[in-house]
Amino acid sequence: MRVRGKGFKEAISVSEALKIVLDNIRELKTEKVSLDKAHGRVLARDIIANIDVPPFDRAAMDGYAVRAKDTFYADEEHPVELKIKGYIAAGDSKRIEIGEKECVGIATGAPLPKGANAVVMVEFTEREGRKVKVYRPVAPGENVMPAGSDIMRGELVIRKGTLLSPRETALLASLGLSEVEVYGKPKVAIISTGNEIISPGKKLEFGKIYDINARALYDEVIENGGAPTFLGIVEDDPDKLREKIKRALDSFDVILTSGGTSAGVGDISYRIIDELGDPGVIVHGVAIKPGKPTVIGVVNGKPIFGLPGYPTSCLIIFNVFVAPLLRNLSGLPERKRKKIKARTSMRIYSAKGRREYVLVNLVGGYDGSYSAYPILSGSGAITTLAYADGYIEVPERVEYVDKDETVNVTLLSDSIRLAELTIIGSHCIGVDIALSLLGPLQSKVINVGSSGGLMAAKRGECDIAGCHLVDENGEYNIPFIRKFGLENKVYLVRGYRREQGFVIASGNPKGIRGIEDILRDDVSFINRNAGSGTRILFDLELQKLAKDLGEKLENLTRRIKGYEIEAKTHSAVAAAVAYGRADVGLAIRTVAEQYGLDFIPIKDEQYDFVIPKEKYEKNSVQRFLKVLKSEEFRDKLSEIPGLIPTDETGNIIHFPE
Amino acid sequence: MRVRGKGFKEAISVSEALKIVLDNIRELKTEKVSLDKAHGRVLARDIIANIDVPPFDRAAMDGYAVRAKDTFYADEEHPVELKIKGYIAAGDSKRIEIGEKECVGIATGAPLPKGANAVVMVEFTEREGRKVKVYRPVAPGENVMPAGSDIMRGELVIRKGTLLSPRETALLASLGLSEVEVYGKPKVAIISTGNEIISPGKKLEFGKIYDINARALYDEVIENGGAPTFLGIVEDDPDKLREKIKRALDSFDVILTSGGTSAGVGDISYRIIDELGDPGVIVHGVAIKPGKPTVIGVVNGKPIFGLPGYPTSCLIIFNVFVAPLLRNLSGLPERKRKKIKARTSMRIYSAKGRREYVLVNLVGGYDGSYSAYPILSGSGAITTLAYADGYIEVPERVEYVDKDETVNVTLLSDSIRLAELTIIGSHCIGVDIALSLLGPLQSKVINVGSSGGLMAAKRGECDIAGCHLVDENGEYNIPFIRKFGLENKVYLVRGYRREQGFVIASGNPKGIRGIEDILRDDVSFINRNAGSGTRILFDLELQKLAKDLGEKLENLTRRIKGYEIEAKTHSAVAAAVAYGRADVGLAIRTVAEQYGLDFIPIKDEQYDFVIPKEKYEKNSVQRFLKVLKSEEFRDKLSEIPGLIPTDETGNIIHFPE
Repeated sequence: MRVRGKGFKEAISVSEALKIVLDNIRELKTEKVSLDKAHGRVLARDIIANIDVPPFDRAAMDGYAVRAKDTFYADEEHPVELKIKGYIAAGDSKRIEIGEKECVGIATGAPLPKGANAVVMVEFTEREGRKVKVYRPVAPGENVMPAGSDIMRGELVIRKGTLLSPRETALLASLGLSEVEVYGKPKVAIISTGNEIISPGKKLEFGKIYDINARALYDEVIENGGAPTFLGIVEDDPDKLREKIKRALDSFDVILTSGGTSAGVGDISYRIIDELGDPGVIVHGVAIKPGKPTVIGVVNGKPIFGLPGYPTSCLIIFNVFVAPLLRNLSGLPERKRKKIKARTSMRIYSAKGRREYVLVNLVGGYDGSYSAYPILSGSGAITTLAYADGYIEVPERVEYVDKDETVNVTLLSDSIRLAELTIIGSHCIGVDIALSLLGPLQSKVINVGSSGGLMAAKRGECDIAGCHLVDENGEYNIPFIRKFGLENKVYLVRGYRREQGFVIASGNPKGIRGIEDILRDDVSFINRNAGSGTRILFDLELQKLAKDLGEKLENLTRRIKGYEIEAKTHSAVAAAVAYGRADVGLAIRTVAEQYGLDFIPIKDEQYDFVIPKEKYEKNSVQRFLKVLKSEEFRDKLSEIPGLIPTDETGNIIHFPE
Repeated sequence: MRVRGKGFKEAISVSEALKIVLDNIRELKTEKVSLDKAHGRVLARDIIANIDVPPFDRAAMDGYAVRAKDTFYADEEHPVELKIKGYIAAGDSKRIEIGEKECVGIATGAPLPKGANAVVMVEFTEREGRKVKVYRPVAPGENVMPAGSDIMRGELVIRKGTLLSPRETALLASLGLSEVEVYGKPKVAIISTGNEIISPGKKLEFGKIYDINARALYDEVIENGGAPTFLGIVEDDPDKLREKIKRALDSFDVILTSGGTSAGVGDISYRIIDELGDPGVIVHGVAIKPGKPTVIGVVNGKPIFGLPGYPTSCLIIFNVFVAPLLRNLSGLPERKRKKIKARTSMRIYSAKGRREYVLVNLVGGYDGSYSAYPILSGSGAITTLAYADGYIEVPERVEYVDKDETVNVTLLSDSIRLAELTIIGSHCIGVDIALSLLGPLQSKVINVGSSGGLMAAKRGECDIAGCHLVDENGEYNIPFIRKFGLENKVYLVRGYRREQGFVIASGNPKGIRGIEDILRDDVSFINRNAGSGTRILFDLELQKLAKDLGEKLENLTRRIKGYEIEAKTHSAVAAAVAYGRADVGLAIRTVAEQYGLDFIPIKDEQYDFVIPKEKYEKNSVQRFLKVLKSEEFRDKLSEIPGLIPTDETGNIIHFPE
């Protein structure tokens, strides 16, 4: 075992750290569980059959149990007549014996009488009182399931180490076992630390955030074969945390804390773990990104993990170090995540000397290939991990992965599959409504603005691109299909009209009447992302204003406070205004109403859907188009202020030529 | 809805039956569950963020919260001096405001004071009393996680229909939700029927078999999103079964019975379901194999399935009809099983006009291709399903699938993976011992006899082939490597010696002294499968006897009662003798001792391991070879009567040339 020094100076490699962890674990006791609870557990001993299955020669058909040789000369013309010596039903324990030219009526599942070695199906017989005529011969063994033919006594039925699925529990039941010895489930204590952390369900006071890690760790522990217990949130107080961990050591096999691991002011986990017993901290600082300030200790043979507080970091470290440990303890095989080859959508710089886990979104292009879009929101955001499809593992020695390189993307969850319907482009609540009417469907909506949507459509990476792009003549979308070279590659389906305008605080405290007020010193603006339809609209309006004022456009944009701050969605614009982070933004009326804000209409625009020719026949796309034409969609859309369905909604207005 | 007539005459297609079932289901009520119990459930409503995450601009580093523009001209030579107005720890709700040239000490996770828009890391500062020197500029927003940057209020966070993995429960926690609305879990009643059925754990009386289906269905219901309850075993008594189903209809959403569905004597499920209410039976007889006599009914809007009693049939029908229904009710997506392309190892005849599910074992050959070996043990055996790797779905119109055709094999379980170590060949308990010493490993042992093992080794389908083949000169194995053309393709590793001999009942009641007694009229024999080493040994001994007697070999084999009855393993031979099904068989001493039988030694033979060149470096193979050479293996082997390790055990005695 390697005991590491204090501080981060000696960050060790991921594989070295993993080895240290696995070298330090102590095996758990196995336990006997009732067969009712065996499903999902891992067998701790080989199962040797203690009985034959079936335990007797068993009739496989309804009919007559016979001596096969008595029937050898039977046919339709010359039935053989046998004397019926009785009847054996399934479950009967009668011990009848038959001799020459004798038989016994028998039900499927019943034990064959002594002397019999075959069953004639009832269809090929005719009963007459105490006798039966047999019209077909049977071979020895016909319609009989011999004792032990399914499982033979002494056979090795299931090997130690097998994960018990219903197929294995069925085997155990067939042997009559009512309990089974399985690997123990490691008892895992989960402790959250931090003064700012409160539990979900509590009132959110200023300065506090909800505890994400406890929930995620708890459910991850279950998925990795452990039995989790949440011990609550501990303040950043060394004495309280020490006391909590100390008590946890009495009753649990593994202890997870999260938060409090940075080397700065809040760092207490490290010191506490190191003081609690021998060997104390065995790993402090791993050459990994995210999650470098991880602390791993062992006290009384029990591992203690000080996980990072940032949720994405915390869960990545859990998966790299804790999950393999829990699986090892509980006998589960390594979690084999699915991998997919993908093309990187941009150059990805990596932390040199650290193994980096780059979270990505995957979208499928033509030929079934995938593009991986790195998620740039950082390890402090839970959405970085939660919205990711998978990750790219960039080794320590690699400085960057180039654009269009082929990489392996490890998918993050078996239960989260690639979307059946991918919508990339401009964000609109109308899309959410359409999706909600689609019924259960794995969909993925990536809001990158209208131009991004058209690019994705060109590469075949989306099924549908929502789009509202206007040219200098006020014409919507069709000019842009030409501009992007998509005339013979896409359908354009008419969506609906939307009211665009300025979103301002209720009561209009800043007295904003139009675009010229946005230039004012005392007015702050929230912009939309470049390439979005709304941004293009705003820039066109600004151009008009620049012309009117005889000024350069750059001069105007420089004067606008917040021009460079880009929100990705209409809602984000409204929220920024609602919470006072900006005085005004351009967005659709819908969100102004949602947030109780005032609205100054600027223009009705046309929101349409671009569909790549190759995606048009997809079932999910057809379902989406059907929804667009439905009465239900029109009704729901009309209820939303600022969204206006028309007679053309759902019509194809451009075909691939 | 199509109501089908009585009897099997109108068996309908699988897709038609599936449609009828899904058309008849009634949606369940959704339910609110605490977030603690949400993992694995399916969201019944879209989740819209009701707060910003984080809820305030949050420091991402320990340091000083500043107005970025105050730092713009700072560098190592010319630090900027700021006045410290206080300190904000994580969780603090202090509302400090800073002005020009002011700052606040701040901890990671703490809310930024009003006026600040960036954090300078503590590493780039130097504190002097109430002042701090800043040695680096920071840009606006640097080291700050803005309010709503992770999740923005009003954002659609998780869509209805999403299966909640830890990543989603983490999102729900981040929003502070303590409960969540999910699809209901269908409450499923499970009833076993049949006089012969008893529960595992009870004493096995003659004529009874253990209930397999209840266990398997219970655990399958869990895997498919339902909440199972086992209502016990009901005798083949219409009144009792009617009463049981009637009561189940009061409290459960779906009712599964198994057994009692054939059209013969025991058929009661059909009549009862049809009498209980409207519409009663909606499907009786499906064009499927196995599982044709399936009954599906609906009473009071609740589906009732009368599943076949044969365990493999029962589980296939469950997976074809019940699993999709349960998943639909519980909101789970369709179970997408992994598919693998494989080459059929033989021609497979299929039931014409019925969709057939042919269970197969998969073994990987060279080039990563797979061969599918159909499992021929029938639907009455649980091992048919439990030992299968997957199944081939043969459509209604297909009469047979030819040998070496490429087919899609659907894998049966995510949790049961392809073996890391595949051993095909002669059965020996020594192999089981070696495997038990290997530690956790997914292995597959297919006992097909020595010759079958050599063929599999030739095709690269096994990692190891256990082999004990003797030629006319008494030489073991090496001559056969030449005969099979494997000289430069395999390693031969020395195994151990085994005592072969005749296994007879304890006390030798039939007075058997040698091979000539097997010819006696009053002696029955149990043979081994053709191609097995033991069979070859027996046939060589028989040849010698024929020579001695001056008789033709065929005459001798014809005289032996049971010569054509082939057991696949040594244990099977011993069991046949032990339970009186045969008087004598040829097997190793090991099994004779196990079953308390007498043993007449015939010959010591050499049991060795053949390893294809390409498999030799495999980690699992190397682990196996290491075990062969271990003291532990020798010790364990020596404890087994009839197995004799030698100094050569584990040595390579033939290299690929």
